[in-house]
Amino acid sequence: MTRSPSLSGPMGSLPLPGFMQKRLFSETPKVRSLDINNINQNVVHAQYAVRGELAIKSEQYRAQLAKGEGKDLPFDSVISANIGNPQQLDQKPLTFFRQVTSILENPQLLESEQVLKDSLGYKSDVIDRAKRLLKDVKSVGAYSQSQGAPGIRQSVADFIERRDGYPSDPANIYLCAGASSGVNALMNVICATPQTGILVPIPQYPLYSATLRLMNAHMVPYYLKEDSNWATDVGGMREALKEAQSKGIDVRAVVVINPGNPTGGSLKPEDINSVLELAAEEKLVMIADEVYQTNVFEGEFQSFKKGLRDLQKSEKNSDGRFDNMELASLHSISKGMVGECGHRGGYYEMVGFDSEVVAQIYKFVSIMLCAPVIGQCLVDCMVKPPVEGEPSYPLYREEYDGIFNGLRKRANALYEAFAQMEGVECQSPQGSMYLFPTIHLPEKAVKAAKEAGKNADDFYCLELLDATGICIVPGSGFGQKEGTLHFRTTFLAPGTDWVSRIVGFHKKFMDKHR
Amino acid sequence: MTRSPSLSGPMGSLPLPGFMQKRLFSETPKVRSLDINNINQNVVHAQYAVRGELAIKSEQYRAQLAKGEGKDLPFDSVISANIGNPQQLDQKPLTFFRQVTSILENPQLLESEQVLKDSLGYKSDVIDRAKRLLKDVKSVGAYSQSQGAPGIRQSVADFIERRDGYPSDPANIYLCAGASSGVNALMNVICATPQTGILVPIPQYPLYSATLRLMNAHMVPYYLKEDSNWATDVGGMREALKEAQSKGIDVRAVVVINPGNPTGGSLKPEDINSVLELAAEEKLVMIADEVYQTNVFEGEFQSFKKGLRDLQKSEKNSDGRFDNMELASLHSISKGMVGECGHRGGYYEMVGFDSEVVAQIYKFVSIMLCAPVIGQCLVDCMVKPPVEGEPSYPLYREEYDGIFNGLRKRANALYEAFAQMEGVECQSPQGSMYLFPTIHLPEKAVKAAKEAGKNADDFYCLELLDATGICIVPGSGFGQKEGTLHFRTTFLAPGTDWVSRIVGFHKKFMDKHR
Repeated sequence: MTRSPSLSGPMGSLPLPGFMQKRLFSETPKVRSLDINNINQNVVHAQYAVRGELAIKSEQYRAQLAKGEGKDLPFDSVISANIGNPQQLDQKPLTFFRQVTSILENPQLLESEQVLKDSLGYKSDVIDRAKRLLKDVKSVGAYSQSQGAPGIRQSVADFIERRDGYPSDPANIYLCAGASSGVNALMNVICATPQTGILVPIPQYPLYSATLRLMNAHMVPYYLKEDSNWATDVGGMREALKEAQSKGIDVRAVVVINPGNPTGGSLKPEDINSVLELAAEEKLVMIADEVYQTNVFEGEFQSFKKGLRDLQKSEKNSDGRFDNMELASLHSISKGMVGECGHRGGYYEMVGFDSEVVAQIYKFVSIMLCAPVIGQCLVDCMVKPPVEGEPSYPLYREEYDGIFNGLRKRANALYEAFAQMEGVECQSPQGSMYLFPTIHLPEKAVKAAKEAGKNADDFYCLELLDATGICIVPGSGFGQKEGTLHFRTTFLAPGTDWVSRIVGFHKKFMDKHR
Repeated sequence: MTRSPSLSGPMGSLPLPGFMQKRLFSETPKVRSLDINNINQNVVHAQYAVRGELAIKSEQYRAQLAKGEGKDLPFDSVISANIGNPQQLDQKPLTFFRQVTSILENPQLLESEQVLKDSLGYKSDVIDRAKRLLKDVKSVGAYSQSQGAPGIRQSVADFIERRDGYPSDPANIYLCAGASSGVNALMNVICATPQTGILVPIPQYPLYSATLRLMNAHMVPYYLKEDSNWATDVGGMREALKEAQSKGIDVRAVVVINPGNPTGGSLKPEDINSVLELAAEEKLVMIADEVYQTNVFEGEFQSFKKGLRDLQKSEKNSDGRFDNMELASLHSISKGMVGECGHRGGYYEMVGFDSEVVAQIYKFVSIMLCAPVIGQCLVDCMVKPPVEGEPSYPLYREEYDGIFNGLRKRANALYEAFAQMEGVECQSPQGSMYLFPTIHLPEKAVKAAKEAGKNADDFYCLELLDATGICIVPGSGFGQKEGTLHFRTTFLAPGTDWVSRIVGFHKKFMDKHR
């Protein structure tokens, strides 16, 4: 019997999570402290499909191909259309941003400004920005204030003010490690008891369902209107609210994701107003997840903050009902043309919150110290990019527009491909980075799925992965109306070859199960 | 009545959290959704003194001084000796690390390798490292695998193997956003019910008490032996365990911080073994917080992992009691000579865990997507620094030793100052970045504190801040034996002037309250 179980050895860079590996000692003589039944069951019951079984299997394929194995696989590359991970799919970082952060990482470069300018193409506004940020944060290796560096919060407030035409106060801005971290802080403070509930759209980004599950609170689902480009339906939201309340659930907040994830929808100002009116009437905290605000292909983005300020000035506020409405709106460097998700940066603005509650949020974020400082600096670049007349502007504009147009083009190509596919219906792409088509599968396919012990959409996505190397996420990972099936795909992957792979697979799948 | 409450306006860069600002509209006409009584009371009751009232007040002083105000303050600078934030206190980042990350931020620099080498002093090993890391992560702006980039996990495993002389498996390594984030993941999975308890040293770093409070679980305190350089006392630990169990608390894990925070102690191998034996016998998960492992001034650091592997091979394991012992050990880029806390990077290694439990930890970390990728790359630099014979080695060695010796020197200077102060007793500095002296205050001072509605140590630290601008943390923020008083100070601040400020203040304080 080996006393020192040889758990390890050079595994190369096999990119599989530890728990997928065969355990090397099986003669388990002693029971451990922790097993699946005695750990936190809220964790056990949380679901997060975006990085679940399919994602893990796709990484396995990718590793096989990278090692020159998998010659018998019916594809030669893996396409990760499951995660909004732009730079993994060849989206180039914006030059201005990365020139700035390269100086922040190595401030010694500022001792050779002429070399930066003459030999490396750094413009003067890059150097100025880096100097300003270094003055604000001192070093990107130092903790900032828990709430984020003051100068960067000022930049965020200025941006919101320019965007909305209403003032914003840097004291209300919290910089965070991506919007996920902001949502986590808000949920942790709001979820007081197992009876607490939060209205969440269906379909939704599973961060919400997972976090509520972890908090042992209720997700109160409301359905988006698929046939109206996934718009909100206030009547349905009110019904969901009343039904939850009738069950004793204490509903405290409502989440809207706009532009939508996974839906790709983009809300009209009147829809935003209706949701705000509902929230004011029912005294709900409004949580506006606006991380895709720059990715709008139809119409223009309008923030919930602007909607609220408009309403506060309007005659609808004659009784002051909107005065103290609590709104938290989130933005992120992860998505859009910035696409810096690996840097984990974002912010949320809180307006209308009670100062004692804000103090608790402040304390909560303090426990995790601060958001990554280089990510905070990228927030600054995002909200205060080069403007016309500044030396870095022409290239910035060109890169930004190039990415935007590329995304729109690929979104449309994918939309058109779906339009040709039997039994697939898709709303036109309006925003964000996703399409979420309905699929009508033949009864035989549904039966085959059942026999394999799977949901029909899981089954379809798994077959797609096995046949084409393309990883997408089944609709069940986001929630969908009973009896309907969907999947979510990003339109980030370059080229169109992979779109034809989907079309080809779909035809074969339908023929096989007809 | 103003409909759009003018909350904002150009606040400059006033670095105060929002809730400290006077609210501009006081005619609160409507009740909000959230107030201090209906939000999560676990958050309300959590305490985190390191960034609490004193820290906020010190930032206020700093802001005043920065704006040229505060001419009547009795000091001209604020010294943040409350937080282990090396680079805020002028510790220079290691050149090799930051040259690498500057390239990772702007890979276009690799198109001008000759300029980097000839004009900017980048050595070939810097460029090689950047290339290797870019190959592993593709872009620092892309999400990595939830568990962290595979190549970097391999580097960590290699490091652990070199350090301990026992194998380590990259599949067991989880990269995280600083050790805090790793602790958070582990606690979230372990804390199953309100009866769950975890043994935590007193004094402790308040991350543990705060996280357990957030999880609504029990902190089971065990006292360190101050008069033995804050060593662990297994007898006392066992008593604390039995007492908790007798109250129905289900104790599942034991935390050790070594080298100690806030104590500055460094454990001997026999103490480590005793704790491991207790954990094995009582079937507790061992959580070893080893983030200060490079800051050891007396003796040598030994990891719990090495201790465990040694025991597994020893005759003490004749009944196999150590075979499946669960150990999680944490390390970080935040501390030591690296000091990159603003980058939020770290790792934990889990050995002996049930694979189903690990799968749940994997899912939990997936929900927050991944640790900051540039922080992951700094983990790689930390665990695989330049070695003898490589071009960047001489400068790395010089910088590293310079920081280490500076820390030791300042630790000793502070220790000697404390030795001269009336009523102050301090253990000799053994490791980490802190000293945690006992203070004996005159009865009159204790009474004055009581009259001010404060703990005596809070009172002392507040008076110190007001008189000298030096911010330290009262012992009550970490826990201390009933009837004793302490404070924690880092020895990071450069120079010795601030040490004399403390000495001067202390004398006056004692004279005043004698």
